[in-house]
Amino acid sequence: MQFLEGKDILEGAQFNRKEIDSIMKVTDDFKQELLSSRSLDLLKGYVLATLFFEPSTRTRLSFETAMQRLGGTVIGFSGAEATSVVKGESLEDTIQTINQYVDMIAMRHPRIGSAKQAASVSTVPVFNGGDGAGQHPTQALLDIYTIHSEQGDIDGSTIVLCGDLLNGRTIHSGVELYRHYDCKLIFVAPDKLRLPKEIVEQLRTWGCKFEETNDLTNAMKEADILYMTRIQKERFENPEEYEKLKNSYVLTREMIEKANPNLKIMHPLPRVSEINTDVDPLPGAAYFRQVKNGMLVRMALLAMVAGKV
Amino acid sequence: MQFLEGKDILEGAQFNRKEIDSIMKVTDDFKQELLSSRSLDLLKGYVLATLFFEPSTRTRLSFETAMQRLGGTVIGFSGAEATSVVKGESLEDTIQTINQYVDMIAMRHPRIGSAKQAASVSTVPVFNGGDGAGQHPTQALLDIYTIHSEQGDIDGSTIVLCGDLLNGRTIHSGVELYRHYDCKLIFVAPDKLRLPKEIVEQLRTWGCKFEETNDLTNAMKEADILYMTRIQKERFENPEEYEKLKNSYVLTREMIEKANPNLKIMHPLPRVSEINTDVDPLPGAAYFRQVKNGMLVRMALLAMVAGKV
Amino acid sequence: MQFLEGKDILEGAQFNRKEIDSIMKVTDDFKQELLSSRSLDLLKGYVLATLFFEPSTRTRLSFETAMQRLGGTVIGFSGAEATSVVKGESLEDTIQTINQYVDMIAMRHPRIGSAKQAASVSTVPVFNGGDGAGQHPTQALLDIYTIHSEQGDIDGSTIVLCGDLLNGRTIHSGVELYRHYDCKLIFVAPDKLRLPKEIVEQLRTWGCKFEETNDLTNAMKEADILYMTRIQKERFENPEEYEKLKNSYVLTREMIEKANPNLKIMHPLPRVSEINTDVDPLPGAAYFRQVKNGMLVRMALLAMVAGKV
Repeated sequence: MQFLEGKDILEGAQFNRKEIDSIMKVTDDFKQELLSSRSLDLLKGYVLATLFFEPSTRTRLSFETAMQRLGGTVIGFSGAEATSVVKGESLEDTIQTINQYVDMIAMRHPRIGSAKQAASVSTVPVFNGGDGAGQHPTQALLDIYTIHSEQGDIDGSTIVLCGDLLNGRTIHSGVELYRHYDCKLIFVAPDKLRLPKEIVEQLRTWGCKFEETNDLTNAMKEADILYMTRIQKERFENPEEYEKLKNSYVLTREMIEKANPNLKIMHPLPRVSEINTDVDPLPGAAYFRQVKNGMLVRMALLAMVAGKV
Repeated sequence: MQFLEGKDILEGAQFNRKEIDSIMKVTDDFKQELLSSRSLDLLKGYVLATLFFEPSTRTRLSFETAMQRLGGTVIGFSGAEATSVVKGESLEDTIQTINQYVDMIAMRHPRIGSAKQAASVSTVPVFNGGDGAGQHPTQALLDIYTIHSEQGDIDGSTIVLCGDLLNGRTIHSGVELYRHYDCKLIFVAPDKLRLPKEIVEQLRTWGCKFEETNDLTNAMKEADILYMTRIQKERFENPEEYEKLKNSYVLTREMIEKANPNLKIMHPLPRVSEINTDVDPLPGAAYFRQVKNGMLVRMALLAMVAGKV
Repeated sequence: MQFLEGKDILEGAQFNRKEIDSIMKVTDDFKQELLSSRSLDLLKGYVLATLFFEPSTRTRLSFETAMQRLGGTVIGFSGAEATSVVKGESLEDTIQTINQYVDMIAMRHPRIGSAKQAASVSTVPVFNGGDGAGQHPTQALLDIYTIHSEQGDIDGSTIVLCGDLLNGRTIHSGVELYRHYDCKLIFVAPDKLRLPKEIVEQLRTWGCKFEETNDLTNAMKEADILYMTRIQKERFENPEEYEKLKNSYVLTREMIEKANPNLKIMHPLPRVSEINTDVDPLPGAAYFRQVKNGMLVRMALLAMVAGKV
């Protein structure tokens, strides 16, 4: 039996290097197959539920397209207002209900730990599509896949991660994967949005090579990958605080022209103002390719969890 | 021609015993077929509209999965805010519009009689997925199917129905079906939420065996089936009234251990607090199996209405 | 290569007479094919995104059913509240994101010019499903198709267009197509809701036969087609103004009995009160057939844009 068959996808920490390599390999294969056909029939008859208790375009539509391009179908909701939650139903009951209908669940929920809570009662595999400021493992995997696909090797790279490192679940799930590679991480953030101490502690325990700094321009000099993130307005209690910090780092074409010419720029999107749109046409601007990789990685995960690879 | 072909599914009262038996039989067959394949191709090319003018997870997703597992597809909306209703369109016009697109309609609407109103102008079959405090016939059929599937025979059973009997459309549609069986019904409710007088009158006219009481513990002694329902907050005008009544009956593991050891517990869900979650692991806790039966019964009805059985 | 392959559908003005004829022909063919089968397999594997930033039942569900009846599948959203727009994402970024998932995009957006803006960055074809008070080309094409299908020839007809001609994008897109026919247009509107001057100017430049009037009854005498439109409440800044104008024209059975006996009545729907429901059973009441034509025309366009005709 394949290692992911019947498993939940809950957090970056659940994967070892061999498993990540195997997911990268399946994603590469699907990428090839989609060059000659728009959809596959691997999951014909399977139904995925997308339970999005919080707004999302990207992740929900990415899962839904991934399922459809595998030949499966989708049910679900987007926004809790249209669901039984307003009648006072617990998350566990919602999950145990949806279990009766579908073969797999992809969910997003504002509360940290909600995906684990769901998985603990679910009889079908659960994909964590983001649990508050917690984990977002499919995003972390698609980030890894993007680096792999943009420059071949992750070992030996210098990766700069910049922006709201305090609230960015993308980053939090990410470090759980980067630690399996022989790469150097440079964390760039305003003081108030630095990486949480526990994560810094963990990086030390794992023996990762990393630095923390305020200085993006300097960090970019030696970077192979620059990973920008959005300052997450919705996590701020104080709007003035947000206004002060929102433009801490704004990447411009000029800054890129002074950096490593092979620099690849990534972003989990949506972006607000942290990457100027004049960066978009540059060959190193990888963030929309990254979106496509998201669909491909999710196809791989759905198929692997279904035991169809 | 099969008796349901091209028909609307509007209320419990439309079915006689032979017809119910026939729906149970088709549902049993689909249940078998789904053991060996996740989906069938019976309704390939058919499109179902799910028009939900009121929040619902369960019923909408149940219809949608049922259609997909029959090989058909779905369009629709959930919540009237995103529809032409805000532009002042009548229900009749919405239905006559949707008629041009789809092969069948499943709808939920807050107004009693809305499904009949829709069916009166519709050129395609209409499934009533709940019309306010009115009818919910597919729920009633899945309840009957659950009793049939949990204990074989409905004739000879004692069925306790407990909770908000005033507003519970599940119960109102249900009695229309129970009357075709030689079973005893015990209605347990707080005084203010007793079964509406008209329904009590009807039960008498039909010559049904039934009792009304406040005393759940006593009723449970002789029960084969205990059907719990939620006190429906959204139907109360006075919030204090709701607070007073919401915990009138709370089923605990302790209560069950003193009852008939073969007792099966059902609930239309969502539940709030009327069944303790420590009841869930008991073999008699049938409410999540009941959810699955909902999908299966709706598959049977969709296929029969399409004339494909 | 077929003329529409890979193209955007943005405005009525993009089509010449030969192209319109070709779309009519394909629509006729699909209409025939759907008589013997509910769905085709032409676009199997294709995914359409329906991005509706503004409420719509008709247009969204029409596109979705069209795609499904061609064998394709759909992802999307309805109402911007559940999307990344609330996180501050630009339309361009949303489009470039969705580009990574799907083969085609159908969109509605409240801002004039939004569809063109989307198309300017999109790598997949964009269908304008209405951009504010701007264009709605698939509606204009289905209107033309309805006249063609109701009475064979458009050349030689007299077409009365009545109601909110100021805000009606249906009308604005429509004149771009009517101008290719040798027909006479009579515009009937209250003074405050007359056709915008630029459009009147254009009609003159094109050398179209047309009149403007307040008098519906008189206009109906010579009409072959009466095209009614809704006074668009949502475009009024002043609610009193709307109240004054909303019942400027109310079509009754009595009025029709005095007009041309072959008169066909059309309406883009939803209607509020501008056509009495007692008109609905008349053989000339074509507005619900018009809705079906909308699905058929969109099937034709989707297939042609995909290069599958």
